[in-house]
This record gives sequence, structure tokens and C-alpha cells, in this order.
Amino acid sequence: MAVKGLGELDQNYDGSKLRIGIIHARWNKKIIDALVDGAVQRLKALGVTDANIVIESVPGSFELPYGSLQFLQRQQAKGEPLDAVIPIGVLIKGSTMHFEYICDSVTKALMRLNFDAKVPIIFGVLTCITEEQAEARAGLIQGKMHNHGEDWGAAAVEMASKQPK
Amino acid sequence: MAVKGLGELDQNYDGSKLRIGIIHARWNKKIIDALVDGAVQRLKALGVTDANIVIESVPGSFELPYGSLQFLQRQQAKGEPLDAVIPIGVLIKGSTMHFEYICDSVTKALMRLNFDAKVPIIFGVLTCITEEQAEARAGLIQGKMHNHGEDWGAAAVEMASKQPK
Amino acid sequence: MAVKGLGELDQNYDGSKLRIGIIHARWNKKIIDALVDGAVQRLKALGVTDANIVIESVPGSFELPYGSLQFLQRQQAKGEPLDAVIPIGVLIKGSTMHFEYICDSVTKALMRLNFDAKVPIIFGVLTCITEEQAEARAGLIQGKMHNHGEDWGAAAVEMASKQPK
Amino acid sequence: MAVKGLGELDQNYDGSKLRIGIIHARWNKKIIDALVDGAVQRLKALGVTDANIVIESVPGSFELPYGSLQFLQRQQAKGEPLDAVIPIGVLIKGSTMHFEYICDSVTKALMRLNFDAKVPIIFGVLTCITEEQAEARAGLIQGKMHNHGEDWGAAAVEMASKQPK
Amino acid sequence: MAVKGLGELDQNYDGSKLRIGIIHARWNKKIIDALVDGAVQRLKALGVTDANIVIESVPGSFELPYGSLQFLQRQQAKGEPLDAVIPIGVLIKGSTMHFEYICDSVTKALMRLNFDAKVPIIFGVLTCITEEQAEARAGLIQGKMHNHGEDWGAAAVEMASKQPK
Repeated sequence: MAVKGLGELDQNYDGSKLRIGIIHARWNKKIIDALVDGAVQRLKALGVTDANIVIESVPGSFELPYGSLQFLQRQQAKGEPLDAVIPIGVLIKGSTMHFEYICDSVTKALMRLNFDAKVPIIFGVLTCITEEQAEARAGLIQGKMHNHGEDWGAAAVEMASKQPK
Repeated sequence: MAVKGLGELDQNYDGSKLRIGIIHARWNKKIIDALVDGAVQRLKALGVTDANIVIESVPGSFELPYGSLQFLQRQQAKGEPLDAVIPIGVLIKGSTMHFEYICDSVTKALMRLNFDAKVPIIFGVLTCITEEQAEARAGLIQGKMHNHGEDWGAAAVEMASKQPK
Repeated sequence: MAVKGLGELDQNYDGSKLRIGIIHARWNKKIIDALVDGAVQRLKALGVTDANIVIESVPGSFELPYGSLQFLQRQQAKGEPLDAVIPIGVLIKGSTMHFEYICDSVTKALMRLNFDAKVPIIFGVLTCITEEQAEARAGLIQGKMHNHGEDWGAAAVEMASKQPK
Repeated sequence: MAVKGLGELDQNYDGSKLRIGIIHARWNKKIIDALVDGAVQRLKALGVTDANIVIESVPGSFELPYGSLQFLQRQQAKGEPLDAVIPIGVLIKGSTMHFEYICDSVTKALMRLNFDAKVPIIFGVLTCITEEQAEARAGLIQGKMHNHGEDWGAAAVEMASKQPK
Repeated sequence: MAVKGLGELDQNYDGSKLRIGIIHARWNKKIIDALVDGAVQRLKALGVTDANIVIESVPGSFELPYGSLQFLQRQQAKGEPLDAVIPIGVLIKGSTMHFEYICDSVTKALMRLNFDAKVPIIFGVLTCITEEQAEARAGLIQGKMHNHGEDWGAAAVEMASKQPK
């Protein structure tokens, strides 16, 4: 569990009435899987039921913003609207400038989607220089850092609970 | 009190009729607390009543822009609309590129929110390379710099007073 | 075929009912041709018919975003609407800052077009420091990397299939 | 007077019917004052009357974009609409990343305001590495550079004159 | 004439029915003049008549995006609407950060204007580190590079021809 930061909630939230979507990219699968698992565990610890945790995927991080909107709309159409979305991706610096342009455009598009969709969109994207940094932030390196997916799960419940009616 | 800059008002403002919201992230708690306190002290010095200073929090700085909108809307729904919002966060450079992408997207989203919400949104986010820089700007290092929260409190009263009716 | 990443689909998609547009810039023709070919091959492997793969071009990458919108609108007007667009361009760092400003504005405009056009827009732009990096990502250097056009073809079919009705 | 550049007008403009707003930040007062003075002198030289030059201020440069909109709206409400606005600020690189994020968000927000307010907004913000650079551009260093405020005054008259009716 | 790239059209375009606007900044006049001339020559070679090439100017590059919109609207109001606009500017790195912020905001605003005005806006802005780089791209250094204005003229005719009716 997080020692400081996002993981510390300002009050006890009850997630038992919330439906939370997780949408993840499929690059760097092992790290992604750990982050998704961390988010799911925290959602459950805050009372979100298994049936109310919906998980989807898209090919890469560039697809996360529009994929999140598609996801919201499909759930809406089914009569099972989401109260928050956690888009999860792992971006690692390579030799071209792909990392920089993807990180920047994805971060801003996820930020904007909060306002356009009027649903909290949590920033579950790691923007790392090395693969090891990403592994550490997914809790995969013993004794280093906690799984950031836990923070994202907590943030989703908090922000969904603060949504104006 | 600020020696130069934001802290110097162009005229005497009367905050006694204004309701000001402060919304802060919860990372780097000691620094955040000092900044919030600086803002509150300055708001009071300019006549804002205790009852009209409303304080909320969000998990991290990425949540500040949408959290500010939620905050504005909840206050509106309660019949207690805010005349300005001061989002407060402390971002410190780490080893990944998280700092850069969060700083950039948060700054732009707060800027934009001014126009979308039609309420002054003050920029209360420190974007520092070291923790010491942030402490200095929160007035926590004796004899170094003043508490920037004071400037933000003054800016909130001024910008709210300049709002077209 | 891709070993990991975008190329691995999360399920079997049937592209036989989809119409996919490819719009490419004309700079660095040999690399562009290989990328377009990779995308076409993958689209066909996923069931998209020859008649439903529509290929257009624009002068340079700056024209890709607005050119994609023109393309979508012309196809719409013909009664042959596109289910996804793959804009393809190859940008290589030169001695001025042209590369940086074009890469940044094109990436963000393509991201935004997803939301404005309500059609998946795949990011088929290489942002490379050297021409060799671009050749490798087009599958033109034996034994180095796979043709990224294949990933884009797969992403187009997947994202089009996930479009809410 | 400017030797080349903005200062050279493409034709003789008559500012006698125009009302121009200047809104300045209050940091770096000596430099700001010189720039405002340069703009005012040039406006007058182009025929703008004293009564039609309206000057306002905001605390810092972050407040310039929304402050410009407030300014436009207040003047509109008074029945004294502005034909152009010159927001003036002086930003100087410090030890944190504050400079970078403020410069970037302010520049883009002022650019956008042109389109949203449908009134020319001139870019009167200096983004300098050193204070000396800013002094030089305010005409405060004898024999170095001209006062850039003059260019901004000329640009305001020209752009206001080119406004479609 | 261009050896590769933008200069090679994908088909023969007939510009004889098109009206094209050129709007240029007035800094670095010699280079600007050469670029405007290159664009005009290419427009004529593609059949655009002298009467249908309309040339305007603005003070500096920051004014190009809004100046282009004013230009479009004035021509519209006259009953002589433009089918494409070529904004031309030359930006050269100086000692402050002015270059970076202007280049970035101008590029993105021109990109966006395509979508807002629904008319092709060609990117005719050079973003150079040295003046010599700009001269070379204006065809002013014998035996070095071709005049990029030619590419912009060709792109304007092509993009205008591809406009949906």
C-alpha cells in the first residue's frame, strides 16, 4: 500500500455503488498486467464489486483516449454507464522521438476527456526512461516502490464519489 | 508578505462579499499545508470571512483541473457558488518523465478552465526541480523566500473583484 | 508479423464489413510505400476486401490531419463512409526545427480528429532522428524490425470494430 | 523607432477612431512601465487619442489571458468596446520550471483568445533568459535595442484596422 | 523546382478556377519576398490567374493565424472567397525563448485554423536556427536548396482541389 501520496484517501469512500472501467494498452504486457491487478485490488478493497469492474483493452497508448470514449459510450448504450475510467499504459523511451510525441498527446487528450465526457478519467500512464522504472512502479521490483495501480484505483473511487449529481 | 510581484495589489480590494475555493493535491503534505495556510491568511487579511473560504482536496495534481470543475459545480448546486478557485499542488522532478507531462497538461488545463468555467482560476502549482525549491516557495526555509500561497490569495481576491457582472 | 505489441490482437476481428482509408504523405516515398503496403497486407489478412481499402495522398505530414477530414467527408458524400483512417507519414529530423513543430502539431491534430470526426484515426506517423530508423520501422532492413504498417492495419480493424453503433 | 520588423507598417493607419486596451502584469515593474510607455507613445503617434487608450493590470502573466477577456467584457458592458488588446508581461527564467510552463500556456492562451474574442490580441510578452535581455527589449539599455512596446502599439493599430466589419 | 517531396504532385491539378490567398509576415523581408515569389510562380504554373492570387501582410508571425482568419472573412464579405491560404513567415532563433514559444503557438494555431475555417491552410513558416538556413530554403543560396514557396503553392492548389463540395 502506498506510504504517501495518492494512496492516502481524505476520507472513507464507499465504492459499492460505483461502476469503474479499466482500459489498458497491450504493450509491455507483464507490467500492464501488474498495474491492472493493483488497480483491481484497490477498487475491491474500497467496496467496488467484481461485477462493477469492467476491463477492456486497446492496441497501444495512442488509442487510450479515443478508446476510453468508445468504452464510455458502449457502456452507456448497454445501460451500464461507468462512473470513472482508468486508462492504463506503459510508455518507455526508445531511440526515435515516438515516446515524446505519444506521451504528450495522450496525457493532454486524457486530461481533456475528463471535461468532454464529464466523467473522471484517471491518469494511469507510466512515462518512463527505462523499463526498470516501469517495473518498479508496477510493484514488480521487490522492496523498491509500490504498485501505482493501487493509487489509480483509489483515485477513481474518490473522484467518482465527488462527481456532482 | 511578498516584497515584489503578485503580492502587491493595484488597489485596495474588499473580499468581504467573496466566496473563494481552495482545492489542493495531497502529495508533499507539509509543503501543501503551508501553501494553503498562506493563501488562507491572505484571503482573511483582504476581508474574506472564514465561512466563505471553502477547502477541498484531490489525490494528485492531475486531478486538480477536473476536480476544480467538480468543486465549482457542487458549490453551485448547493447555492454557494465560488467567485474564484485556487488549485494548489506541488510537483517535483523525479527520474521518469511524469513531472514534465503532468506539469504541462495541468498548467494548460487550469488556464483553459478560466475560460470554460468563466470564473478566475489562480495558478497555485509549484513546478520544482528539487524539494528544497518547493519548501522555499512555501515559506518553510527561514530567510529565503515568502510563502507563495499569499500571492495566490491576493490574486484570487483581485481577479474575482474584476469579474464582469 | 509483429512479435509483441500492437500486432497482437485481443480477439479475432472480422474486417469483411469494414471500409478503411489510408492517407499518406509523399515525402520519403520508398519508406511510405513499404508502410502502406504493410498496412494493406494486414487489413486483407483480417478480411477487409480490396474494394474497401481506399488510398489517398497529401503533399506532406502537415496536411495529414486536415487531409484526413477532407477524405472522410468526400467518402461520406459519395455514400462510401470510412470506418477508420490510417494517416501515414515519415518525419526525419533535419537541421532546422521544422521536424519538432510538425511532429508535435500533427500528432495532436490526429489525436483530436478522433474526437471531432467520431471515427478512429490511427497514428501512422514515424518521428525519427535518422532515415535508417524509419527504414527499420518500415521493415526495409532485413532482420531488424517488423513493418509498423502491419500494426496500424490491425489497430484500424480493432478500433473500427469497437466503435459504438 | 524600430529599424526593421513589426515597427514598419505596410501602409498609413489612422488610429483616431480606435479604442485600444493595454493590460499588464505587475512583476518586473520598471521594465513593464517602459514597455507600456513605448506602446502608448506609438499608439498616440498613430492617432489613437488619450481617451481611447485604456490601461489595466493583473497580478502576473498567468492572469493575462483571462484578465484580457474580463477586460474586453467589462469595456463591452460599459459601451466602450476595445478594438484590440495588448497584454504585456515580462517573464524571466528562474531556477524552477515555472518560467517554461507559464510562458507556454500564456502564449497559447493569448493566441487562442484572438479567435474566441474575435478581437486582435497582440503578443506583448517577453520570454527572456536574463533580466538584461528584458531591459534591452524595453529600450532601457542605451544603444542596444528599441522598445518593443512600440512594435506592439503599431501591431494593435494595424490588426484592429484589418478587422472585418 | 523541387527534386522530391511536396513539389511532386500526385496528379495534374487545374488551378484556373481557384482563388488563393498569401498572407506574409514582414520580418526578414528579403527572405519573405523570395518565398512569396516562389509560391506565386508555382500557383501561376498550375493555372491560377494573376487576378486570383491575393496577397496581404501582417506585422509578425504571431499575427499570421488570426490575420489569416481576418483575411478569409474580408474576402468572404467582398464576395471573393479564398479556396486556400498560404501564411508565410520566417522565424529565426534568437537569444531569448521568443522563437520557441512563437513557433509552437503559430504552428498549432495554423493547424487548427484548417478545421475551424474549413479551408486548407498551408504551413509556410520556416523555423530556423540560423538566417542562412532560411535563405537556403528560400532558394537564395545558389546550388543549395530549392525555394520552399514553390512547394507551398503546389500544396495550396492540391489541397484546395481536394476540398469536399
